[in-house]
Amino acid sequence: MIFTDTKNPDFAESFNELLQRGKMDIAHVSAIVANIINEIKTDKNSALKQHISKFDNWTPSCDEDLKISTESMSKAYDNIDSKLKAALHLAYDRIKVYHEKQKPKSWFDTEENGTILGQKVTAVDSAGLYIPGGKAAYPSSLLMNVIPAQVAGVEKIVVCTPTPDNEPNELLLAACHLCGVSEVYKVGGASAIAAMAYGTQTIPKVDVITGPGNIFVATAKKMVFGDVNIDMIAGPSEIGILADDSANANHLAVDMLSQAEHDEMASSILITPSQKLADEVRVEIENWLIKLPREEIARKSIEERGAIIVTSDMDEAIKLMNDIAPEHLEVATDNAFELLPMIKHAGAIFLGHNTPEAIGDYVAGPNHTLPTGGTAKFYSPLGVENFMKKTSIISFSHKAINEIGEACALIANTEGLTAHEQSVRVRMSK
Amino acid sequence: MIFTDTKNPDFAESFNELLQRGKMDIAHVSAIVANIINEIKTDKNSALKQHISKFDNWTPSCDEDLKISTESMSKAYDNIDSKLKAALHLAYDRIKVYHEKQKPKSWFDTEENGTILGQKVTAVDSAGLYIPGGKAAYPSSLLMNVIPAQVAGVEKIVVCTPTPDNEPNELLLAACHLCGVSEVYKVGGASAIAAMAYGTQTIPKVDVITGPGNIFVATAKKMVFGDVNIDMIAGPSEIGILADDSANANHLAVDMLSQAEHDEMASSILITPSQKLADEVRVEIENWLIKLPREEIARKSIEERGAIIVTSDMDEAIKLMNDIAPEHLEVATDNAFELLPMIKHAGAIFLGHNTPEAIGDYVAGPNHTLPTGGTAKFYSPLGVENFMKKTSIISFSHKAINEIGEACALIANTEGLTAHEQSVRVRMSK
Repeated sequence: MIFTDTKNPDFAESFNELLQRGKMDIAHVSAIVANIINEIKTDKNSALKQHISKFDNWTPSCDEDLKISTESMSKAYDNIDSKLKAALHLAYDRIKVYHEKQKPKSWFDTEENGTILGQKVTAVDSAGLYIPGGKAAYPSSLLMNVIPAQVAGVEKIVVCTPTPDNEPNELLLAACHLCGVSEVYKVGGASAIAAMAYGTQTIPKVDVITGPGNIFVATAKKMVFGDVNIDMIAGPSEIGILADDSANANHLAVDMLSQAEHDEMASSILITPSQKLADEVRVEIENWLIKLPREEIARKSIEERGAIIVTSDMDEAIKLMNDIAPEHLEVATDNAFELLPMIKHAGAIFLGHNTPEAIGDYVAGPNHTLPTGGTAKFYSPLGVENFMKKTSIISFSHKAINEIGEACALIANTEGLTAHEQSVRVRMSK
Repeated sequence: MIFTDTKNPDFAESFNELLQRGKMDIAHVSAIVANIINEIKTDKNSALKQHISKFDNWTPSCDEDLKISTESMSKAYDNIDSKLKAALHLAYDRIKVYHEKQKPKSWFDTEENGTILGQKVTAVDSAGLYIPGGKAAYPSSLLMNVIPAQVAGVEKIVVCTPTPDNEPNELLLAACHLCGVSEVYKVGGASAIAAMAYGTQTIPKVDVITGPGNIFVATAKKMVFGDVNIDMIAGPSEIGILADDSANANHLAVDMLSQAEHDEMASSILITPSQKLADEVRVEIENWLIKLPREEIARKSIEERGAIIVTSDMDEAIKLMNDIAPEHLEVATDNAFELLPMIKHAGAIFLGHNTPEAIGDYVAGPNHTLPTGGTAKFYSPLGVENFMKKTSIISFSHKAINEIGEACALIANTEGLTAHEQSVRVRMSK
């Protein structure tokens, strides 16, 4: 763990290490992934089956074997505990309400000469959602990807998830039933991304692919980008915390560990002007670690990629956090809303002492798929807009083209584009 | 030119050719572009200078030589004809007004238990705009890229444009002055994209890169995607026209040629239920072609990539056009607005007989940077949102976490994430 003070002579070096935290070196997997994509493009289902044999330890005997039956989903749903069922429904409803609020609307405006300009917003026809499987199968990931696509109005929603040993995760199946998803395929990794990007005999080609995954999935998403749209290229999860003396060290320690328990590559970074808080959180982390079933992962993450930085004041802390642009940012101060305007870059901001990051992972409502590794400087959370696209609307009257046509013809002429110029002039009154 | 009828036995084959129109095979340039990017990453300015010597036929003698002076921009502006100046100002003002209307707003909502959820929308810190240079230097491209970045509120706007023989295009310089852009570099191609993605001693690293370019530029944009955001991967320009007997064949012919004159690779596709119109447009295209200074390019484009398709009715025409998802779509019918709801995919739609596509290239207001090659099925026009990003806002009160925390803790527990669960439980009342 980096435990430092901005006054340390080697601070700049330590901090630079944090800025590089999310860098994925895809070079060493590029050739493998390109090969997988080409195999799927060429051999489609038969390549899919081979990849499943190789990576998931079972062999589909026919094309139908690739698909999960809706019966098994409804059965899984019936089998889950009623309290958990209620919790998942609460999550579903809250996520849906939030995403409905962010849905963009078509609009237009008119000018008195008869001009109409606007923007038509429509759903993409189809979306492919990648949901990690096996031990890291999270029903919450399914909700967070399906709901924005449903709110957008996507007609065809397809899910791909790896199923090692041909044993689908029961919770994921239950969540599929809850969400009303019916087209789920037992395909994972780069193969799944390629199948959804280019289509096979069984898996349809889609317009947009979203969802988290390992470096093979991320690399495949980058490679198919342009042939389909994708949400973002995401790396390991991370949390940044801005806090002062008003914060509870015990709470912040467990918040940091809630990132660390995800993944050895996860980063947890506390920046505070309070030396006292910094010291306390460091101790509390140790107290919590030994209580966690996932201690090993969390300890490695904290040791190798955790950081506690003491600054001269909150302004300096905010400045550093803006450079980091964390996926999740907790602001654990009494005046969290006062600090909000100064915070420039983060995937999601959790304000005040009662808002642990985990509440946003499941039930708060906003999406938990967020930009990582500093990409919050230019990417947005997954949302309804990822499943929609815009079309410009332009309509001119005869009066309007007469009024504005000359300027248009003049610029076209200057650019040497005569047919452009003439297409306007032929419509103007002589 | 494809001149066909949907009843022709080989129609499906011809139509499939049109669907493949935008496919760029980047495989053969990938190695070259990857190499250029690596050279810029490693050798920065010195690599830039070598690339300029090689591709633009002049050699910068010092780092300052890479930058265009603001004096030369204001001088170029002073030198342009007053009518053209007025036309460019009209274009600037109309584009700005349109883009201001599409600027997204931050929002939040509250629940009575003390929950606040919302979305904060902010500009990216910096943007890099690529503007093609040399013979294809279009001042309109500058306006269409700069204005959305300015409306978004981007603080640092950088422009890169190739300047063969060290002779900047005077119109482009004038447009830079008009737009108030001051940081313009004489760097083109994949080198420019790499320089803006990773930074050099002279050119700053930016957050978002937009702008049109050839296959090397498009490939470089795809390769740096993830380290920065990009607008889209665009190919050759194209127009689709839906028309009936109410349309003017002479007008439609010149509209098709306004695409064809851009580029031999451009596609111009008319789909109509009127055999009469189809025959007339075919004749008019020939009449226009011989009058165009860019006849050679336009003729090659029309011959190799033009199409006129006769359908049984307008419904069939619309269905085919939705499959094509053209960059520009003209609806040349008396009832254009009645057809609008049925049109699912297009970059921009030009409605009615008085709205030639060229009006949208320059002065209408909407952006002329649009998705090509069928990518309108999932990409949107360039806009203010390309230069902004969103951050989710979440704030819970003590009452709110007490009400909703249990559901959250339960799901976290089910997913095996104990620290997630505990980070919620420690904040709930015992």
